[in-house]
Formats: sequence, C-alpha cells, structure tokens
Amino acid sequence: MHPVRVRDDERIDQLTPELGIVQSPNAFRFSMDAVLLARFCRVPHRGRILDLCTGNGVIPILLSTRTSLPIDGLDIQPRLVDMGRRSVEMNGLSTQINLFEGDLRECSPDWNGRYDLVTCNPPYMPVSESERNRNQSVAIARHEICCTLEDVVRAASRLLRSGGRLAMVHRASRFADIVTTMRRYRLEPKRVRWVHPRREAEANMVLVEAAKDGGVELHVESPLVVYQQDGSYTEDIHRLYGGVYS
Amino acid sequence: MHPVRVRDDERIDQLTPELGIVQSPNAFRFSMDAVLLARFCRVPHRGRILDLCTGNGVIPILLSTRTSLPIDGLDIQPRLVDMGRRSVEMNGLSTQINLFEGDLRECSPDWNGRYDLVTCNPPYMPVSESERNRNQSVAIARHEICCTLEDVVRAASRLLRSGGRLAMVHRASRFADIVTTMRRYRLEPKRVRWVHPRREAEANMVLVEAAKDGGVELHVESPLVVYQQDGSYTEDIHRLYGGVYS
Repeated sequence: MHPVRVRDDERIDQLTPELGIVQSPNAFRFSMDAVLLARFCRVPHRGRILDLCTGNGVIPILLSTRTSLPIDGLDIQPRLVDMGRRSVEMNGLSTQINLFEGDLRECSPDWNGRYDLVTCNPPYMPVSESERNRNQSVAIARHEICCTLEDVVRAASRLLRSGGRLAMVHRASRFADIVTTMRRYRLEPKRVRWVHPRREAEANMVLVEAAKDGGVELHVESPLVVYQQDGSYTEDIHRLYGGVYS
Repeated sequence: MHPVRVRDDERIDQLTPELGIVQSPNAFRFSMDAVLLARFCRVPHRGRILDLCTGNGVIPILLSTRTSLPIDGLDIQPRLVDMGRRSVEMNGLSTQINLFEGDLRECSPDWNGRYDLVTCNPPYMPVSESERNRNQSVAIARHEICCTLEDVVRAASRLLRSGGRLAMVHRASRFADIVTTMRRYRLEPKRVRWVHPRREAEANMVLVEAAKDGGVELHVESPLVVYQQDGSYTEDIHRLYGGVYS
C-alpha cells in the first residue's frame, strides 16, 4: 500500500487482506450495507460505473476487486471525498477510481446517460431535528438532509443509459416507496434480495436492482440471513464478506 | 356433514378433519396458494369478510375455522358457485357463508365500503389463446380472462371501508405491478411474505396485505419455504396446513 496522510482522528482500517480504507469515527464509517451492495450488484461487461453517496469510497474500492471498468464516486461532503481519495491513492487505484465532490441533484448534463451501473447506499432516515444537530457529517450520511430517495432515483435515471442498472440498498419498510419512485423515473425493479437479521425475523434491509426502461418481471432471490441462532454470522454472510473486515 | 348432491364428475375431498369440499377435475380444484392465503390474512375482530374469485369457496370455508364473522364469496362462474354452495351446506356453514354469482367489475354500489377484509386468489396468468381454448372453467380461474390484477384491486378498494384490508396471493414476479396498482387505488402494502419453493430458490409466489388509506410502512415477514432438500414439506408448511389435505 502507498503511504498517505492520516489526520489525528483518522485511522486506516483493513477492508480486505489487500485493501485498506481511511476512516474516522467523527466523520463516517462504512457499514455492512455497503459491503452487501458491492457484492449484490451485477457488474457490467463494459462501460462505466458510478457510486452515488459514495462517502469515503468504500463501494468503489470494493468493486475494484470485481471489475477493471472505470468507477466514479460522488459525495456532497468534502471531508469524506478527501478521505476517499487518500484511500484510493493508498490502494494504488487512482487510474480506475475517480471521486468527485458534488451534489447529485446538480450533476453536469455532460454525465447524462453516461453510466452502465449506478450504485447507491443512500441516507435512510427521515430528517429529525435532534439527529441533525448531533454530528453534521454523520447526520448527512445517514439522514435525508441533502438527498431524499426521490433525489437519488431521479439522478440515477438521468445518469444511466437506457438498459443500464441502478443497484441500491435501503430500508425494507420503504420498499413500496422505492418501487413507485423507481417506476416514476423509468427504472423497473428486476432483482430483489431481502436481508433478515435472523431467520425468523422480519427483513430490515433490501437490496434492489432496477433496469432503466426494463420490462416487467421481478426476481426475488433467496433471502439473506445475517445471524445464526447463536449470534454468529451465517455462512452466506461469511461468503459475501470474503476477506472484508468490518 | 350434511348430505348433498354430487354430480358424476365431482367428488368430495377432505379439507380438514371436520370440513369437506366438492371439487371436480373438469372445473376447478383449489391449490396450496388458497390455503396459504387463508392462513396469512389477519382476520378482523368485527365486520364482514369478502372473498373475490372465490371459486368453489375454499377460502371462506377455511376462514370459518378462524372467525365467526359473516363471510361472503363472489365468483363469475355459476358452476363453481353451485359447487361452493353445496360445500357450504354440507359443512353446516349456511348461516355464516354466502356465495354470490357475479362479476367483480359490476358489484352493486350497495356493497361499497361494506367489508373489513377482502381476500383474493385471483387468476395469475396473462391470457394466451391456446390456454383459453382448453377448458373454459379452469382457464377462467387461472387466466386473466374475466378479471385483471387491476380489476381485482379496483373492486377491493371500492368494497373495503377505509382502514380495511385486502389480502392477496399472486406471482412474485408481478410484485412491482401489484404495488403500483394498489397505491393507485389507495391501498398501501403493509405486510408481505415471500413463498420460496426451496430455501435457495427464487420466490415464486407472494402473500401481500394492504390497508385502504394506510400509512407507508411495509413489513416483510420471514420467508416461507415450501420444500425441504429431500422434497418433503417444511415444518412451516405442515404448521400452516394443519389438517388441510390437498
């Protein structure tokens, strides 16, 4: 790994045996959702990939183990993009991954129809005043302060070519909103995988992939269960995590 | 059981240890989907229940084991309604269950807002000429000849009181259509259970319950797996089937 600057409140976490990532408890740390999304999405054979709400670039960095296609990332928070760029540099991925600072509601029209795959692990939580005041960086990453579900879907639809795919992870309870919002922007849900904390529990998360201008047919994959009865990870999670430490 | 007329091509199948049902291979026989729906739906504490596309009345008859509320059933096929009425009579349920012959697209306005729960195991398959010509009775029960998904949802919404629930079983692959159609008619999806033939297989069916004028929050229950690796039914299916023979 290439040497990079690390600030006082930052540390380098091991992402896989080969990859590291700069993180800070004061800004943002990736969660299991990001890892599951990076494994769930189907990587295209050609073209470009974009990760919206990329945070510290965890999804582009993980995707680099699955494809050599160029991957862009976009986040509204300068601090996170700075951390992400140092992680990209540290892992020697500067020729494959480009992280941009910007607002997904205001992407340049030059980007329209440019991407074959858009991934997104967006903020899940509706805005509440108490959360908003706690830690601005963490709040923006978790709450719908700078972008709502509709903002994400609208941006993804605009940036994807026809036939391109949006892969997203979100709260299971929002799925009806997800479906209707996607369809409003010509994104047809094609693949879903529900994430259940335990075998007998309700799903708390959903992995969903939609095709721009796709035909109607939803594939509901086998459920993903996170924990066994004894509280340890299931085989499925071990397999998906591979070498990822979290 | 009370004695009833049985035609040459009909037989009496045992539905539970206490209940029988008149069926005919030439007309219609109930499937596992109907049994799963009769178990999945939440029975209201008061009010009336209606089963659309009731066929030979299997769902009303099964629901009678869970509630003493009045249950109506509606089907467009006179032959099936006749079989269903004889089953109701045979089981001594004539005071609880009323089966009507009619088109759900043309229910009397007197029925508007009359029901607290509407159940429906509708025809799943798009119409194809070859199927349509095979057996008219079976074709109407299985194919969207006399009613489409939208017909069912529109009728249910009209017949339910505000806050009342529609419980439906349908093809998993149609779920995006189900969600957007329900929302178009003020029915908000609230509970879903996916049915997977095997643990590792894609879901082929979905059980879904929606509330008229309900708030946005979908609960995705633990998945229902039908068969074990060795081809025998899972514990879950044995528990749901209880005494039902199929």
